[in-house]
Amino acid sequence: MYTCNAERLKETIEQFSKFGATKNNGVTRLSLSKEDIQARDYFCECCKALGMEIKVDDMANIYATLPGKKDLPPIVMGSHLDSVEKGGRFDGVLGVLTALEVVRTIKENNIELDIPVTIVNFTNEEGARFDPAMMSSGVLTNKFDKEKMLQSTDKNGITFGEALKESGYEGDVENRLKEALAFIELHVEQGPVLETESKTIGVVEGVLGMVCYEVTVTGESDHAGTTPMSMRKDPLFLSVKLLSSIIEQLGTVNEELVYTVGRVLVTPNIHTVIPNKVTFTVEARHKEEEKIKQVEDILQSLPKEDNGCTVKVEKLWGRDTVVFDSDLCDQIEQASNKFGYSSIRLYSGAGHDAQFIASIIPSAMIFVPSINGKSHCEEEFTPYEDCAKGADVLLETVLNLQKKFSLEESKS
Amino acid sequence: MYTCNAERLKETIEQFSKFGATKNNGVTRLSLSKEDIQARDYFCECCKALGMEIKVDDMANIYATLPGKKDLPPIVMGSHLDSVEKGGRFDGVLGVLTALEVVRTIKENNIELDIPVTIVNFTNEEGARFDPAMMSSGVLTNKFDKEKMLQSTDKNGITFGEALKESGYEGDVENRLKEALAFIELHVEQGPVLETESKTIGVVEGVLGMVCYEVTVTGESDHAGTTPMSMRKDPLFLSVKLLSSIIEQLGTVNEELVYTVGRVLVTPNIHTVIPNKVTFTVEARHKEEEKIKQVEDILQSLPKEDNGCTVKVEKLWGRDTVVFDSDLCDQIEQASNKFGYSSIRLYSGAGHDAQFIASIIPSAMIFVPSINGKSHCEEEFTPYEDCAKGADVLLETVLNLQKKFSLEESKS
Repeated sequence: MYTCNAERLKETIEQFSKFGATKNNGVTRLSLSKEDIQARDYFCECCKALGMEIKVDDMANIYATLPGKKDLPPIVMGSHLDSVEKGGRFDGVLGVLTALEVVRTIKENNIELDIPVTIVNFTNEEGARFDPAMMSSGVLTNKFDKEKMLQSTDKNGITFGEALKESGYEGDVENRLKEALAFIELHVEQGPVLETESKTIGVVEGVLGMVCYEVTVTGESDHAGTTPMSMRKDPLFLSVKLLSSIIEQLGTVNEELVYTVGRVLVTPNIHTVIPNKVTFTVEARHKEEEKIKQVEDILQSLPKEDNGCTVKVEKLWGRDTVVFDSDLCDQIEQASNKFGYSSIRLYSGAGHDAQFIASIIPSAMIFVPSINGKSHCEEEFTPYEDCAKGADVLLETVLNLQKKFSLEESKS
Repeated sequence: MYTCNAERLKETIEQFSKFGATKNNGVTRLSLSKEDIQARDYFCECCKALGMEIKVDDMANIYATLPGKKDLPPIVMGSHLDSVEKGGRFDGVLGVLTALEVVRTIKENNIELDIPVTIVNFTNEEGARFDPAMMSSGVLTNKFDKEKMLQSTDKNGITFGEALKESGYEGDVENRLKEALAFIELHVEQGPVLETESKTIGVVEGVLGMVCYEVTVTGESDHAGTTPMSMRKDPLFLSVKLLSSIIEQLGTVNEELVYTVGRVLVTPNIHTVIPNKVTFTVEARHKEEEKIKQVEDILQSLPKEDNGCTVKVEKLWGRDTVVFDSDLCDQIEQASNKFGYSSIRLYSGAGHDAQFIASIIPSAMIFVPSINGKSHCEEEFTPYEDCAKGADVLLETVLNLQKKFSLEESKS
């Protein structure tokens, strides 16, 4: 049984964390920025050194392929090299670098491949420079319209289209990922479950469906000192009442439901003035459609009027649960078991490129622990030994898939 | 019994509302601005035409005095000519213009005064251009330090001291209001009580004491999708719980207590991120010290820790209730009764120059109705007939005080 080189992987992670390094061990490597280009160039260099063939598509997604003996679509691994502003050194890049470590291990052990293996780097997964997140995997899978994406503008007024041209990474639409036998994305969990449960490997069965609502409570501004309580139309007091009820009701839906009131806007937000408007968001995630429906029912059944205020409930967006390929999940779990690494099956609450790719290619994900559940911040950390264990599981899974698909092809 | 000239008062109000007129019937007449200077100049012109002597003090407060036969301190009426940005045409200026109407009525009826009558215009009552509000009455009564006030800076970086020099209204410290037999400030209510109770005259017995607290709930930001409910330290959910409890408890203190949560700040305020900090203000007003103490006890007894979050309770400021001169209140009520105008005794929830002046001179206030309780906005409105009724009550009160003080002086 082959294992990856933990020391080499650590060095590679540290090398990449120099591209856009921040002073507190994080990285700022916005999509198609100078720092992202540096990381891309170095990634291509590493892949070429392994004899891999590099292709780039029209969204600047990079595909590095190690050929196999059989003329079959590849097994694909990877994630993204871009980060948020002052992000961590693991989110995204770890999926690319563990894939690189897998290929390096294959090469140094002279493992002969029947089926090609491709490493992919998806452009602008974070959406931190150009909205939306998961832009390129979304274009590949027809979730997003490419022309609209080209117009997406960063805070300096540069469009994605302009950044693409400037980057030197605008390739051919023909190179887009269309066909593959499997896609496996390794990623940091970005949550506290693995660490809390003392597990090393997360077998990700899917990505949670979610809804996001906005509730607007409109009342009337009056002087805080001169308006008796009985004559007020205070949307803040009503919002507190509504939120109490919402939080209490959501608590009874299901223990796996996660729900968050992340944004609250109060107008005019002056301590001596009774507010005239309060807006708050409620977002909730669960793998079962029916549970999400229950959340929507709770929000939709809020009173339309109360305490002299009006209440408007608006759905901002929603997404359905994505279920990953169960056979791939089994393969990942078995690989983990073979090494004796502890594992747990779970759903991802966060979005990932794999959730889009799953609509065209059998996909799954491997999670490794995030210390204190932190991500998108400089404190983001995954122990290097856990990174290496994740790479081992990725390697073993890819090698098992080689055998499986090769056998299937021989039989057909 | 003398009455004021309702038509003339209306014309005067309309004339003054041209100084800084906004397009929706309001005014923007920030303290010592060009528009305020126009209003001051015109006010002085009107007073001189009545044979009044104008004095100005070092804070640009204007005093226009009609002499009396006896060498006694004056009876003072007035308020302020400055407004907030896009304020109304009644707040403050009505107290000055009803006083002017009183003197005009005295003059045209050839009423001989024993005691001098002074109209005062206090500088920068609103605090809309230079913080704090009631700046000049505060300096006169040693609530504020003049040197600090001179450094108060508007949004264009101009200090109050600079504006004072520039205005042409920087007078002599010797002219400050020090001694007077009474001070009566007529003002719009800025609240809905008079209108709701169908009363024309408010006999203001004092200004409510108040406290303003800030509560800071600190938790931990985590990804809204990846953090199970049981592992969250969500300061927003805890804030909702605390606010529910605070609102419920404050509701039991006393029916006259007014309390407001005007400002809420959520950090980072992103719909997909569990907040790490929520800050909200709680301010409450009541005439009884003991009720304010109860409010403070409720806030001080909030838990210091809950749900993995810390709770910090901080008093931002407070002021004691100011009780106006009871004899003056009686005089105002009797004057109102004489005309058959309906009246009600009440406390002011808002702050006024009279609350500071009350510490050196027997003071009281007369309120006239604010339609829908609106003030500090262009919709602010008081029916002109109510303005005139207020002027009548002011006139009658001043004339009665003339007799009263004159008699007292003769006896002594």
